[in-house]
Amino acid sequence: MRVEVVTIGDELLLGYTLDSNAAHLARELAGAGVEIVRRSTVGDGPEDIAVAVREALERTGAVITTGGLGPTSDDLTKPSIAAIFGRKMRLDETILAALKARWAKRFPGEFPQSNAQQAMIPEGARILANNHGSAPGIWLEDDRGRWVAMLPGVPREMRGMLADTLLPLVLERAAARGGEPHVVRSRTLRTTGIGESALADMLGEAARLPGGLPLAYLPGWEGTDLRLTARGMPAAGADAALDRAASILREKIGKWVYGEDTADLAATVLDACRARGLTIAVAESCTGGMLGARLTAIAGSSDVVLGGVIAYANQVKVAMLGVRQGTLDTHGAVSEETVREMASGARQRLGSSVAVAITGIAGPGGGTPDKPVGTIWLAVDVDGHVTAKRIQTIGDRDENRRRAAQGALALTLRALGAGA
Amino acid sequence: MRVEVVTIGDELLLGYTLDSNAAHLARELAGAGVEIVRRSTVGDGPEDIAVAVREALERTGAVITTGGLGPTSDDLTKPSIAAIFGRKMRLDETILAALKARWAKRFPGEFPQSNAQQAMIPEGARILANNHGSAPGIWLEDDRGRWVAMLPGVPREMRGMLADTLLPLVLERAAARGGEPHVVRSRTLRTTGIGESALADMLGEAARLPGGLPLAYLPGWEGTDLRLTARGMPAAGADAALDRAASILREKIGKWVYGEDTADLAATVLDACRARGLTIAVAESCTGGMLGARLTAIAGSSDVVLGGVIAYANQVKVAMLGVRQGTLDTHGAVSEETVREMASGARQRLGSSVAVAITGIAGPGGGTPDKPVGTIWLAVDVDGHVTAKRIQTIGDRDENRRRAAQGALALTLRALGAGA
Repeated sequence: MRVEVVTIGDELLLGYTLDSNAAHLARELAGAGVEIVRRSTVGDGPEDIAVAVREALERTGAVITTGGLGPTSDDLTKPSIAAIFGRKMRLDETILAALKARWAKRFPGEFPQSNAQQAMIPEGARILANNHGSAPGIWLEDDRGRWVAMLPGVPREMRGMLADTLLPLVLERAAARGGEPHVVRSRTLRTTGIGESALADMLGEAARLPGGLPLAYLPGWEGTDLRLTARGMPAAGADAALDRAASILREKIGKWVYGEDTADLAATVLDACRARGLTIAVAESCTGGMLGARLTAIAGSSDVVLGGVIAYANQVKVAMLGVRQGTLDTHGAVSEETVREMASGARQRLGSSVAVAITGIAGPGGGTPDKPVGTIWLAVDVDGHVTAKRIQTIGDRDENRRRAAQGALALTLRALGAGA
Repeated sequence: MRVEVVTIGDELLLGYTLDSNAAHLARELAGAGVEIVRRSTVGDGPEDIAVAVREALERTGAVITTGGLGPTSDDLTKPSIAAIFGRKMRLDETILAALKARWAKRFPGEFPQSNAQQAMIPEGARILANNHGSAPGIWLEDDRGRWVAMLPGVPREMRGMLADTLLPLVLERAAARGGEPHVVRSRTLRTTGIGESALADMLGEAARLPGGLPLAYLPGWEGTDLRLTARGMPAAGADAALDRAASILREKIGKWVYGEDTADLAATVLDACRARGLTIAVAESCTGGMLGARLTAIAGSSDVVLGGVIAYANQVKVAMLGVRQGTLDTHGAVSEETVREMASGARQRLGSSVAVAITGIAGPGGGTPDKPVGTIWLAVDVDGHVTAKRIQTIGDRDENRRRAAQGALALTLRALGAGA
């Protein structure tokens, strides 16, 4: 089944809002075997909406729209699309009653009449229930089986409605046409602490994966992600092919893999600490709290994370972490000697089993020929055993800091003997 | 002038990559008076590219594409679009020489033959110089003045080429058609520490702005942004109308405004400290380093920021900040008493003039009837004068933490007597 997506709204068209709905729809539909062949974005003008949807309908006979179903009076999506099908709008009393009940439960005062237009639907339309908001979705179909599904633009509502209602409906249509749908599914192995070309060298012939699955190298500040994609086969076959290919990759480069898909290295480090009954503290200079923020971003981190010291100024490294003034004078703030003392100082003063320290030159200023911007020293102290490592990042200030925090997490995981 | 944008690539169509190019193009073009009427995304298939570009060309006669110009051999954008114009591809020796020189400067070893296809251009095409990468852009025009501009997909390169080369060229075409172009420009006043409806009440009649400029309320974790939009007038008129409307808004709600457009509250706080010769430290519990990370994200922050303590566990509040165990036992970690002692402790121990403290319940767990999830206590100590404030956030863990850090910055700015 081939589908087109039309996202609607001046905010999107003018670039004030990033179109996250379109990407989500594409991933979900492709993963279920529905092929998206084009996405279009138009503004709120009814004529623009009508033309774009009519054209898409002529190309594929199956169109999903997002946006333009809200309570504001200038949303003209529904009547524009109803007109393509030659349908009039009518007030749906059931929807109106539900809207009023929802309003009464949440707000004081009378139901605003302007909200009633959410209860206007095209004649002969099927309602797609919205369990995550007020505006219902709409499914409109003609006697030739051509259809348009209208979803709300609010991402949370759109995602809920897609999963709850629309995707099952679309798959039912696809099944009625016979044959098992062919899906596009992907699996990502997340690596860190190793470069893209080193990975490619290690994989060598393994890059020829069973079923010829393509392998994409996606380098970023978190490391290099390896994305496998299976296309053109039924769901079960795709998942099995991804499993096989992922194990072949893991045989070769498993020690650098810290997780799959949306895995987060900070969560992996917390799990490794938790499994060993360890607590953790941080000592951060150039990252200024970023590492602590990443660790504590994870719900339930408080059984592992004690806290840390943001030792941005040298006087704080001395006063709060016990770094010796002599070390700073002799070796500088960005040095192996300093980062080791930061880690040990944090572990001792905060009373944790593990402490992770970062000091570096995030830029744009502050670089020297010896220690250019992007020079980062990392250290981890595990029960008194300190490991230090220098990394060199290439990026802007933000990226250098992110890479420093990620590098510190990778070093910690390795020091804990937990791979990656 | 009306333009369509076509973004090209399987990665975009399948939703693996968010289409940030499309939003950037839309904002820049609208700001210069070029109206975007539709955006489309298609995959890498040459037929899909050709159909989408041909249709767009028929609708507007002016099309900008992004993507598909890189060195990988399956990029077929250029020949697909050349075919629409009935043009053959030819090797451009000047581009090839530049590609080879660029390669030799950056990489060892021979120039890979596959990269040479970046030097293939349609006959009669105009080259758009790429000062930010290797693949040049291409401008193709027929004798009726219909044109397609092809830009690379890498955002940094696309943005550079748009500003350096394409936008001046498009504006020149628009000017040749006579009449001053009408632009869409916006101005955003950023407020924090006050709700959307309170702002609306304060603005009252002021919401009727000169020239009828529409005012959008955009609530988010950083506060409520007020966006003014001027449309349908020449650039100078739009800017003047925005100036007038912004001053009317500032008269009414100026004390809540911390900046315009992309202003960052952390930078505003640093500026306020710098102007008074003050240094700053942080003491963070539930935010775990997020506030420190925001302050140090700003280049040059080291003349103001000394550092801080991430006091996630209660034992760290006591050991590193001198919070009294009795205070924690009597009032709890999330309380006015604790947050005040955290701020004062940080100021004294780090030796700063200002210290900002945050303690709260970020969720999803840890809430009680008295102190539900989202209960945040903030304090700022300026030279020994402590101000504390309780805020209640409604969101997920990440949003509660972001709002807590933003609230702490807002409180600091007010304590420094610097508005907002």
